[in-house]
Amino acid sequence: MKTLNIGLVGYGFMGRTHSNAFLQAPRYFQLPYKPVLKALCARNADRAKAFADNWGYESIETDWRKLVERKDIDLIDIASTNDTHHDIAIAAAKAGKMVMCEKPLGRNAEEAKAMVAAVEAAKVPNSVWYNYRRVPAVVLLKHLLDEGKFGRIFHYRAKFLQDWTISADLPQGGEGLWRLDVKVAGSGVTGDLLAHCIDTALWLNGSISEVTAMTETFIKERKHNLTGKVEPVGIDDASAFLCRFKNGTLATFESTRYARGHKALYTLEINGEHASAAWDLHDLHRIQYFDHKDEGRVRGWRSVHITDSDHPYMKHWWVPGLQIGYEHTFIHQFADFVQAAAEGESIGPTFRDGLATDYVTDAVLKSAGTKKWETVPAA
Amino acid sequence: MKTLNIGLVGYGFMGRTHSNAFLQAPRYFQLPYKPVLKALCARNADRAKAFADNWGYESIETDWRKLVERKDIDLIDIASTNDTHHDIAIAAAKAGKMVMCEKPLGRNAEEAKAMVAAVEAAKVPNSVWYNYRRVPAVVLLKHLLDEGKFGRIFHYRAKFLQDWTISADLPQGGEGLWRLDVKVAGSGVTGDLLAHCIDTALWLNGSISEVTAMTETFIKERKHNLTGKVEPVGIDDASAFLCRFKNGTLATFESTRYARGHKALYTLEINGEHASAAWDLHDLHRIQYFDHKDEGRVRGWRSVHITDSDHPYMKHWWVPGLQIGYEHTFIHQFADFVQAAAEGESIGPTFRDGLATDYVTDAVLKSAGTKKWETVPAA
Amino acid sequence: MKTLNIGLVGYGFMGRTHSNAFLQAPRYFQLPYKPVLKALCARNADRAKAFADNWGYESIETDWRKLVERKDIDLIDIASTNDTHHDIAIAAAKAGKMVMCEKPLGRNAEEAKAMVAAVEAAKVPNSVWYNYRRVPAVVLLKHLLDEGKFGRIFHYRAKFLQDWTISADLPQGGEGLWRLDVKVAGSGVTGDLLAHCIDTALWLNGSISEVTAMTETFIKERKHNLTGKVEPVGIDDASAFLCRFKNGTLATFESTRYARGHKALYTLEINGEHASAAWDLHDLHRIQYFDHKDEGRVRGWRSVHITDSDHPYMKHWWVPGLQIGYEHTFIHQFADFVQAAAEGESIGPTFRDGLATDYVTDAVLKSAGTKKWETVPAA
Amino acid sequence: MKTLNIGLVGYGFMGRTHSNAFLQAPRYFQLPYKPVLKALCARNADRAKAFADNWGYESIETDWRKLVERKDIDLIDIASTNDTHHDIAIAAAKAGKMVMCEKPLGRNAEEAKAMVAAVEAAKVPNSVWYNYRRVPAVVLLKHLLDEGKFGRIFHYRAKFLQDWTISADLPQGGEGLWRLDVKVAGSGVTGDLLAHCIDTALWLNGSISEVTAMTETFIKERKHNLTGKVEPVGIDDASAFLCRFKNGTLATFESTRYARGHKALYTLEINGEHASAAWDLHDLHRIQYFDHKDEGRVRGWRSVHITDSDHPYMKHWWVPGLQIGYEHTFIHQFADFVQAAAEGESIGPTFRDGLATDYVTDAVLKSAGTKKWETVPAA
Repeated sequence: MKTLNIGLVGYGFMGRTHSNAFLQAPRYFQLPYKPVLKALCARNADRAKAFADNWGYESIETDWRKLVERKDIDLIDIASTNDTHHDIAIAAAKAGKMVMCEKPLGRNAEEAKAMVAAVEAAKVPNSVWYNYRRVPAVVLLKHLLDEGKFGRIFHYRAKFLQDWTISADLPQGGEGLWRLDVKVAGSGVTGDLLAHCIDTALWLNGSISEVTAMTETFIKERKHNLTGKVEPVGIDDASAFLCRFKNGTLATFESTRYARGHKALYTLEINGEHASAAWDLHDLHRIQYFDHKDEGRVRGWRSVHITDSDHPYMKHWWVPGLQIGYEHTFIHQFADFVQAAAEGESIGPTFRDGLATDYVTDAVLKSAGTKKWETVPAA
Repeated sequence: MKTLNIGLVGYGFMGRTHSNAFLQAPRYFQLPYKPVLKALCARNADRAKAFADNWGYESIETDWRKLVERKDIDLIDIASTNDTHHDIAIAAAKAGKMVMCEKPLGRNAEEAKAMVAAVEAAKVPNSVWYNYRRVPAVVLLKHLLDEGKFGRIFHYRAKFLQDWTISADLPQGGEGLWRLDVKVAGSGVTGDLLAHCIDTALWLNGSISEVTAMTETFIKERKHNLTGKVEPVGIDDASAFLCRFKNGTLATFESTRYARGHKALYTLEINGEHASAAWDLHDLHRIQYFDHKDEGRVRGWRSVHITDSDHPYMKHWWVPGLQIGYEHTFIHQFADFVQAAAEGESIGPTFRDGLATDYVTDAVLKSAGTKKWETVPAA
Repeated sequence: MKTLNIGLVGYGFMGRTHSNAFLQAPRYFQLPYKPVLKALCARNADRAKAFADNWGYESIETDWRKLVERKDIDLIDIASTNDTHHDIAIAAAKAGKMVMCEKPLGRNAEEAKAMVAAVEAAKVPNSVWYNYRRVPAVVLLKHLLDEGKFGRIFHYRAKFLQDWTISADLPQGGEGLWRLDVKVAGSGVTGDLLAHCIDTALWLNGSISEVTAMTETFIKERKHNLTGKVEPVGIDDASAFLCRFKNGTLATFESTRYARGHKALYTLEINGEHASAAWDLHDLHRIQYFDHKDEGRVRGWRSVHITDSDHPYMKHWWVPGLQIGYEHTFIHQFADFVQAAAEGESIGPTFRDGLATDYVTDAVLKSAGTKKWETVPAA
Repeated sequence: MKTLNIGLVGYGFMGRTHSNAFLQAPRYFQLPYKPVLKALCARNADRAKAFADNWGYESIETDWRKLVERKDIDLIDIASTNDTHHDIAIAAAKAGKMVMCEKPLGRNAEEAKAMVAAVEAAKVPNSVWYNYRRVPAVVLLKHLLDEGKFGRIFHYRAKFLQDWTISADLPQGGEGLWRLDVKVAGSGVTGDLLAHCIDTALWLNGSISEVTAMTETFIKERKHNLTGKVEPVGIDDASAFLCRFKNGTLATFESTRYARGHKALYTLEINGEHASAAWDLHDLHRIQYFDHKDEGRVRGWRSVHITDSDHPYMKHWWVPGLQIGYEHTFIHQFADFVQAAAEGESIGPTFRDGLATDYVTDAVLKSAGTKKWETVPAA
């Protein structure tokens, strides 16, 4: 079987989930290519070596430019910090590599736009790791929506709640804390958490027309680990917006890292003319589904456990009643990517889909400043 | 409108729920008779007077024999301790009164049998206050079962869990604690809690053939408030049994006052060929319902909120989404009783139904002693 | 005991809940006055008579002006449509009556302001029936907040979701449907549903500074029952807003009658520095409570069943584990009102509190039109 | 690093979960040996080859006797049908191999006893794949119990409910259906499902003294795929028992494949003097925990999401809020096994632990026949 040689940039949390996907996908899915973990790239050679050994990468690089130039690499996978996405992706595309990139695509739409242009000019398969599109429960929602089971959609609401930055003693920047450093991350929860909610929403319910938003930085100054000084915090700690979709749906979105008691509570709910549904990441293998066509006396929200063989992706796993985990969403995305790539196709979320999300997050951040409704450009 | 003159014996917890039912039923239901709170009977005249004043009883008695003899009383309602049920009910029936009696009917089947004989000989409307038969959610289950929506019933399971007697310092007997005194109560959780589970089960799923049981008294001695001495505890603190129904259903039942964290957790679940359902008293206005005929992908347990006008009894109350409470089950039972009594009929649970439950509880207690399966007589 | 003579205007849904409160409160609470259902007022004499008979009102009136003039009335309770609140309340206050008024206080803040002026000038006890302030679970939240258990409040979110107007065949106006007629109701879900959310929020978390809002009328024309013609719909079907509280809290609010599957789903959640809590009206006797001080390994959202004697109001009712219902909130409010009135005091929500909510709903409706952030005046 | 050469027997559902564990464990845990997938053994050479290729086994065997004889194998892992466990395990032990064996250990205690004797005589590390002992949530329960947080245990209840054999058209025997063939499986749900419940219970709460049980075969005859004939069904479709533990706990256990709506609903609950806890396999990364020491007003069942780094095993996986899946329990067991094996130790559940469970299941099946309480021998 033909191989698909992978060069991964970054060995953090996302480097692990992607590597796991490369290794697990071929065990559970029929893939047209055999994935080969060819090279791991990171600036710290010792750590890169340790990571490569653990996951079975054949070699390491300490400069992503070298990785991109290597002839024996088919796919560049970007799992490094947000400030590196733009340069690596464009270089990889120019080198004719397939590109997968962690979310958000750019730190802003301007960066993302250039990245889209690059992959589209190079005609290389590309995808952004908005992995929640491949939770089986979320895919089922997509199917039900596309089949028209909901009718006209009146309402959409999503939120992503965490609580890990409430302490004022937490520094910004440095190892594992770059998400608090606006220069590296681009924004706070808007690009980190709301972006997930937006990507799913655009996929499920189409384009967003306009937004009115509010953001807040609750802790105004934090020590920066790299400088050792207390510096102003540039990111948004919380971000919420109201919006209208092109199809007339009204929606509310919210994300924060100051919601005590919630770790990764991404929830969404859709209210349609005939049916409603809800999902949440803390119990990711369930959907709550309400079908108005059920007989009145016994009409209720169904708690559907998404573990049966007729549920998306689940025939590849265990038996009914037994759950899979968070990391499986990456396995699904990679399996789909490889299958499409063999045909020269890209699966969604493509880079262009990633740009669409960046347009919304840019509008949200802008509206929070102007205190006006802002229009969202089409991607 | 003709009046229905009520004489109530007992002013405890159940005296309050019954009095509330007498007052509330005519506001919400069309009754053929106007209930009149004629007399309240209890040994302590001062307390009886206070209770009568609060609830609007026209008079008091301190001897139930006098109450039963009064010509101006149509219905004797027994809400006093278990050891008084037998004598009062039989005397009331002989005096030609309608009789409502708190559960369990007798302290044992022998007492209950005599009570049944008395009301049936006198042909007076009679009922036992197994109030959970009139939770709207439970009535809905009955309707669904009777319509055949479940098909063959494979399994039934019920439990009633409390935690209020875990402390060894709690005395047995005296004010509010007579349920720990075996002479007064007849038994412990078997007659108090399991009896509820059994009554509902017999109503929903028919007769029980045989049982194997286990009981335990965790705290062996407690101070008795009336004697002031530490005395052996005669009641069962916990009671569980396996059984087979006449229709072939296998069942498990359990009750205890030693289940930390549960206050009045009466739960039941029925598994049929085509459907399953579950209910619990802590969220009494919901049923969980699973219908195998639903489309596979979106098949799940429906959480049905029993507050719509097409749900049993609910058109008499508020609007969809708004709950009623525990005490409403008594209102429903009294309204049904009065409507049937106007036709000379009795509603279930009749005294004969109460006897059926006592036969099961007797068999449970016997089996716990013999350590054998015991057959349940037909009521 | 001194009597409190009540004159009720209106016999609809709210007329029933208030009447029930008048009758039930003295059975369960020690009241300084004995409530007497003196007169029921409604335009249709036959219906008024039937209602009065059912609930035990001694007399009827068909013109509220006459009711207000009666010397034998101490308290005027307004349960008629929103367009009548202003005139009746002001007349009642001028006549020196205590006044209780259904929510919202006015159809807008201008009406409400005049009503506040009237009761404050007359120095009469007054209250608005925002009954959810007296759900035991919500009162517990208030206590916990006031004790400082949450620390700084970062987030508040509330929504009130219904689905009863989705059908385009539903008329506006006429019997039971006046809530769809903007002239009678003043607004749609903003005044009907959001107003509840706002009242609770102001009570729990203090004043709101500014809002940005969005409203929608999904069904633009409906037949009007009174004219028989298809007419434009003037109410808002859905309404959502973002806001900031004076204390720095960020909040999202939403209400709609187009959320399939929800009947009266009023939910609220508060995220504080040390603790979080959530409540919902569909399971109104529970709170979800998260305390960060719990040991890490077993830290979780506690589902607290608000049925114990140490929970607000619950010692007046049954025993642990047994729920009360929706209508009990009115009983609590009336009991509190009477107790305060005996001291010449008013309980919250007073008319002034009702005005505060009307200021917010006015700002919401204004912002939906201007598409700008709007400042909320202090009440 | 030293290698651990593995020979696996069986390529069914369990062959997959074990193979996954061998591959994943070294990526997430520091192991003293490097696992090598040396050989896969199954009777059908073509299928064995396909399975070996997919999972990376270096070679295949079609006779387990040959596998056991191979010098290059350190560990024999038995994932074949129940009727093969006894012979393979004993031969493997005699050959000095470490042995891991799927549950139940034997088809009955007699088989299991011989297997225990063999591994103990050979002093080889051994373990039975009762994988639910290594769900992080269940391990947390074990820790809390061992620390004494529950005090005296009054009650234990467990059930394992499925619904996959309700159809009378389902054959017994043959591919994937051997669990319905009593000769192969040994018993029905007692050995398949109850055995899991029992293993966990013995681990958490100590020995069981005596049982009274009831079993049922709802569908009496089914076509046998291997003979093509309709034959009597020898297995138990449902099995329930009451029991007493050595420590005085009362317990109820139940399992069935006829509980419509449940796929793999293994639930357990423990009620202690000071605390209670519950867990269920359908939401396997949560425990419900009730601590009586919490302040009364806010005391409730805590829903603890077992995804934090201070939860058992979880620091090896992702970040708080993100779940792992069913298959991870096998990874944990294998990682623990290898770590102990490097010290010449066995981890629980050892073969002796497996025998203890077989003693209980034997007593359950016996009691169902004798209709008497049966004593459970010590393992």
